[in-house]
Amino acid sequence: MSKAELGVGMVGYAFMGAVHSQAWRTVNHVFDLPVGVRLAAIGGRDPVAVKAAADRHGWAAAETDWRALIERDDVAIVDICTPGDTHAEIAVAALAAGKHVICEKPLANTVEEAVSMASAAADDAARGVRSMVAFNYRRVPALAYARALVADGRIGTLHHVRAAYQQDWLVDPSAPLTWRMQKERAGSGALGDIAAHIVDAAQFVVGDVLSGVSGMTETFVKSRPLSGGSGLSAAAGGAGVGDVTVDDAAVFFGRFAQGGIATFEATRFATGRKNAMQLELYGSGGGIRFDFERMNELQFFNGSDPDEEGGFRRVLVTEASHPYLEAWWPPGHPLGYEHTFTHEFRDFLVALDEGTDPSPSFADGLQVQRVLAAVSSSAESNSGWVEV
Amino acid sequence: MSKAELGVGMVGYAFMGAVHSQAWRTVNHVFDLPVGVRLAAIGGRDPVAVKAAADRHGWAAAETDWRALIERDDVAIVDICTPGDTHAEIAVAALAAGKHVICEKPLANTVEEAVSMASAAADDAARGVRSMVAFNYRRVPALAYARALVADGRIGTLHHVRAAYQQDWLVDPSAPLTWRMQKERAGSGALGDIAAHIVDAAQFVVGDVLSGVSGMTETFVKSRPLSGGSGLSAAAGGAGVGDVTVDDAAVFFGRFAQGGIATFEATRFATGRKNAMQLELYGSGGGIRFDFERMNELQFFNGSDPDEEGGFRRVLVTEASHPYLEAWWPPGHPLGYEHTFTHEFRDFLVALDEGTDPSPSFADGLQVQRVLAAVSSSAESNSGWVEV
Amino acid sequence: MSKAELGVGMVGYAFMGAVHSQAWRTVNHVFDLPVGVRLAAIGGRDPVAVKAAADRHGWAAAETDWRALIERDDVAIVDICTPGDTHAEIAVAALAAGKHVICEKPLANTVEEAVSMASAAADDAARGVRSMVAFNYRRVPALAYARALVADGRIGTLHHVRAAYQQDWLVDPSAPLTWRMQKERAGSGALGDIAAHIVDAAQFVVGDVLSGVSGMTETFVKSRPLSGGSGLSAAAGGAGVGDVTVDDAAVFFGRFAQGGIATFEATRFATGRKNAMQLELYGSGGGIRFDFERMNELQFFNGSDPDEEGGFRRVLVTEASHPYLEAWWPPGHPLGYEHTFTHEFRDFLVALDEGTDPSPSFADGLQVQRVLAAVSSSAESNSGWVEV
Amino acid sequence: MSKAELGVGMVGYAFMGAVHSQAWRTVNHVFDLPVGVRLAAIGGRDPVAVKAAADRHGWAAAETDWRALIERDDVAIVDICTPGDTHAEIAVAALAAGKHVICEKPLANTVEEAVSMASAAADDAARGVRSMVAFNYRRVPALAYARALVADGRIGTLHHVRAAYQQDWLVDPSAPLTWRMQKERAGSGALGDIAAHIVDAAQFVVGDVLSGVSGMTETFVKSRPLSGGSGLSAAAGGAGVGDVTVDDAAVFFGRFAQGGIATFEATRFATGRKNAMQLELYGSGGGIRFDFERMNELQFFNGSDPDEEGGFRRVLVTEASHPYLEAWWPPGHPLGYEHTFTHEFRDFLVALDEGTDPSPSFADGLQVQRVLAAVSSSAESNSGWVEV
Repeated sequence: MSKAELGVGMVGYAFMGAVHSQAWRTVNHVFDLPVGVRLAAIGGRDPVAVKAAADRHGWAAAETDWRALIERDDVAIVDICTPGDTHAEIAVAALAAGKHVICEKPLANTVEEAVSMASAAADDAARGVRSMVAFNYRRVPALAYARALVADGRIGTLHHVRAAYQQDWLVDPSAPLTWRMQKERAGSGALGDIAAHIVDAAQFVVGDVLSGVSGMTETFVKSRPLSGGSGLSAAAGGAGVGDVTVDDAAVFFGRFAQGGIATFEATRFATGRKNAMQLELYGSGGGIRFDFERMNELQFFNGSDPDEEGGFRRVLVTEASHPYLEAWWPPGHPLGYEHTFTHEFRDFLVALDEGTDPSPSFADGLQVQRVLAAVSSSAESNSGWVEV
Repeated sequence: MSKAELGVGMVGYAFMGAVHSQAWRTVNHVFDLPVGVRLAAIGGRDPVAVKAAADRHGWAAAETDWRALIERDDVAIVDICTPGDTHAEIAVAALAAGKHVICEKPLANTVEEAVSMASAAADDAARGVRSMVAFNYRRVPALAYARALVADGRIGTLHHVRAAYQQDWLVDPSAPLTWRMQKERAGSGALGDIAAHIVDAAQFVVGDVLSGVSGMTETFVKSRPLSGGSGLSAAAGGAGVGDVTVDDAAVFFGRFAQGGIATFEATRFATGRKNAMQLELYGSGGGIRFDFERMNELQFFNGSDPDEEGGFRRVLVTEASHPYLEAWWPPGHPLGYEHTFTHEFRDFLVALDEGTDPSPSFADGLQVQRVLAAVSSSAESNSGWVEV
Repeated sequence: MSKAELGVGMVGYAFMGAVHSQAWRTVNHVFDLPVGVRLAAIGGRDPVAVKAAADRHGWAAAETDWRALIERDDVAIVDICTPGDTHAEIAVAALAAGKHVICEKPLANTVEEAVSMASAAADDAARGVRSMVAFNYRRVPALAYARALVADGRIGTLHHVRAAYQQDWLVDPSAPLTWRMQKERAGSGALGDIAAHIVDAAQFVVGDVLSGVSGMTETFVKSRPLSGGSGLSAAAGGAGVGDVTVDDAAVFFGRFAQGGIATFEATRFATGRKNAMQLELYGSGGGIRFDFERMNELQFFNGSDPDEEGGFRRVLVTEASHPYLEAWWPPGHPLGYEHTFTHEFRDFLVALDEGTDPSPSFADGLQVQRVLAAVSSSAESNSGWVEV
Repeated sequence: MSKAELGVGMVGYAFMGAVHSQAWRTVNHVFDLPVGVRLAAIGGRDPVAVKAAADRHGWAAAETDWRALIERDDVAIVDICTPGDTHAEIAVAALAAGKHVICEKPLANTVEEAVSMASAAADDAARGVRSMVAFNYRRVPALAYARALVADGRIGTLHHVRAAYQQDWLVDPSAPLTWRMQKERAGSGALGDIAAHIVDAAQFVVGDVLSGVSGMTETFVKSRPLSGGSGLSAAAGGAGVGDVTVDDAAVFFGRFAQGGIATFEATRFATGRKNAMQLELYGSGGGIRFDFERMNELQFFNGSDPDEEGGFRRVLVTEASHPYLEAWWPPGHPLGYEHTFTHEFRDFLVALDEGTDPSPSFADGLQVQRVLAAVSSSAESNSGWVEV
């Protein structure tokens, strides 16, 4: 291609690394973009593993030190796929080095870290260095379309949001302890990992922020076998049993700043539900229902239909007129999970080309972090109301 | 029939009166019971209307004074279908008159009234006078079957209950003010009317009680046009506008006494959802999902199925081996709403014949009332935790 | 009641008898009709069984000879619920006796019998004696509403009908041989029993008739154990094994007279499908989908919705503006199977009062019979096309 | 990578070309294969368009003559994505040149062409040159899993197959005439384009072939506006109106050689159905249902479950133990349409490495062609039965 090409350097190569790689490989072949990308380098601490990941996922080089990776001349974009405790340090350093940054969610493990990142991002944006937090569910076409419906006034005044993110991968008490169950690495459990997604998605689709919450958390299995493992189960290593120091589930309700009430439920213990990221909205003019396990569908109730004709419409969000779909297959041919990332990178590259700030910003990531912190705070103080 | 026949006297003849009438007319023709019933008398204040209701619904006599009705020699069972503010007085008087009592839910408008009713019921049960609160959703075959699955250990240790009761009949702000929106008549709004159902159903299916809650309520439309009307819209009368003095929606979470967490959401503002009484349970051994809009189906995930064969089963709860179904149609032929009451009356009559206490008892109704009161109390005090 | 009351005499008391009884008991209490009914007498050959059925189902008298039953002065309506081989004789005699007749489907076991019945019905209608064939699925509110949508032009020019009626009650080869599997009693198997329903429903909803068909039938299990039994399994009696002389399944396609093609599939061997009477229609302006296992729902695709908003709407056919629903419960409260008969009887009584011919007529029943005969004929001659 | 790399040369670059490209780009990064691929050259007649396609889709070179493309030294695999009238010539030439061939379906436009291809393929396989027809739906994980269930005896003796492929992209009569509606280019309409898929899928999942059929075809819109266009609407060019010379819809039924009956329906006129490739199977031991619009789900009824626990299980076919899934994302994260091709290429490359014949073979493609020809023949002769 003759168009400009930006090199990407990605840190981390587990589950998120694999998904991001597939999206980076794909974005320029599906979307007709003004700027191209090159999979320049992948970073990770284990030299053998990172080299294997580079080969497998199509990265030109491998680095064992993330500092070396962000310093590379052929890296213009740094993509952070590591556990949350490392986000702030890497992101701030990369921005300081003049690299655009995409950072996986949650933005950080603490509000303090998130504040430092958002602050750096705001400063650096002023000099044209861009950043984005990777809330990929915003790029599910059905949810992007839901946002368009809401913005267009199709559900009217908001009354209710009902959100849930249900998984079941920890229901077996013999599932090993990994970094995702350790507070010092992951910050929190279901709260930061998946409640973060539904908080962001709800705020995105509604177009408003939560102003206060009341919450409760629970750890059903208090200790688990230690394990070496990798990927989703990359544990601290060693044998024996370790304490689970994060929540298995979090439930909370809240209010939106401009009106409307909301409930949230995030769990890794909903036996039979695999990745059921669900969102319902009800307003004076209509209703919307979504379940990621059927990610190509949006249920839409148009309140202005006559009573006898009204019903939730199962809209297959695969029409050329739907968000992101013009570039894809004919109607009725489903897209998959990974393309939420392909779309995210598309939007990021378009923003870079246009010189605008990609969305969601680190400030948006910080706001979600504040909500999660408020939930934790409420849960620790008898579920009393906490302002965000 | 040569079998003993008990006369029923029903107070109230609006929506619930119509449904109860259909169930009383049906119960002896579908189920082979040791005792029969006769629709002896119906009571209501308006002499013309109550006579018309008697004719329409098949009652032998009409009374305009409930005290006269409960005194009738041909009335052995008093069935109370009036607004909540009258339950205590009628029920206590009927029990004192030695009549068996079925009382619509919620048992009463206040905990105090409910205490008096439960106390009277306990005393009278000792002398063979029986009473039951009409939580009809326990008699949905799918939920009765869900209870059996749980009791049989099929979902293992409970982790989650997720319940919701979503309607949308008040989303239009021009819908008239009726007694159901007036605190002095109805006690509360969505809370007592429909949250009561999901609290009872959740506790019934789980086989445990809630030990504490945190909640929030909301009234989206603060005043509504006054109206005469009848049935669901039987208002205080007059013209102009009146204040809505109850909640339009209530959301809360809680903990079960023996473990497991739960969320509840009840609303009359979920645009597009008509009568979506929903219940989900997840435990160490399986999961269950139910939606009353598809009342003949239970979704059951059997956690002991091999991973690759596992999935929520859409069980059509219409087999002869399912609760109540032996008396009905062949598999795949749906039952309707009214038969939750037919089943309730069947169980009531069987208990009378066996000389046992029907379930749910007034004490069970009182316990639900305590949960609702705890939710209100939490909602009034910054959503802080309140023990039940 | 002061209104006129017509006595009903019902012949047969197995599955259909039980359902009809419940509908007769209910129709006047739910619908406000100009004419009432009385359950005057029930007929059956076994004196003990018919007396028990009378008691159980609420009939005032029992007769062991159907001729005596139709002669009774207190019987104005004869309701025929017996196997198909007896329909013609009873119906023609009842009409001759000046009694209105409702006859279960299929109208008869042969076209010849059906011709004689339709002929008698036409003659007797001229002197005010009315008749109807009981294709109850026309009275499913969702299908009546589908008919209204089609009649209103909402699906435009018809292109496709796709119909199926799937059950699985014979998949077990040890299920006993009953009259439903004997040609001399039932006329045919899945063809007359359930294909008859989807042929009638398709023609009713479309508003046109099939002009020709090509078909195939199959008997998967050629012989079955004999059995006494009753109800659905009322067999010829005796021990040993008997031949199945009817089809277990029938598949066929055809053309509508005014255009559009159709496929049909009826089987008692669709393992897992209990009573899945399904109908799909597609036209230039929209699409419709229905499954009786979810009888309260109609899926409607409105072709004039914008592409990105289009989707099959799950219409809960429980609004007061839907057919038959004004008399029932609030939105979202499901109706059950039996009420397709309650609606049928309502329409029959209204027609009697108005002095019009009820629908579907015996002539309609004859037309369905001609379609079934054409399918049989095609199946017997190498599946070649047969005009109806 | 150090592993062997085979160059791919692809002919055609419209819809199928785009999908195949994405799959070729992906297969080696997701699956750990013994052999790699390189996107060597893409072929097409228009030099500007083919160069643009090469750039967009990541092909190293472009050729305007397919003969030149198959002769290239860097091309070891020829992937044919052109209309059906060109398949035979290209495929036979490529095989003769010693290149492995993947050919899009239907294998050819006539049985004669398909015979020549199958013959060449058999000859060339003897010398290690491999070929495959691209029935990609076999590689939907849910259908591959369905095949495994059937092969494992889980549905027992087959009674029924009910298949349909419903689209609606031609329901608008102003949709332009393209090669897909011209007999000389496409061979047939819905029959060869989409009925071919359900015939192959049904035979694949059942593990048997159809022995005879009876069919009917229909062209609802006989002429359409001519258009230049491209991709799915690449027409013959010019203005005015042209005749549609293929079927818009085809319906047929048939018998499997080893028992069981089947119905098929393929249409481009099912308003509201976008790409609903559906398959149902019922046997003595269970039932299976599938709809490609929900491609990550398989509905499975296990006939050996107790009656009251039985129900169609919605199996999310995203477990690591499901076909192809070990290489992908965690449970509950959907795959998309394109990966049916990624899986196809994976299997093809594994077969090349192992020196075995990939499946489905050209002989399999020929067998499907014979079924389609029998349907056409039946449709032309009064729908009489035609042996395959």
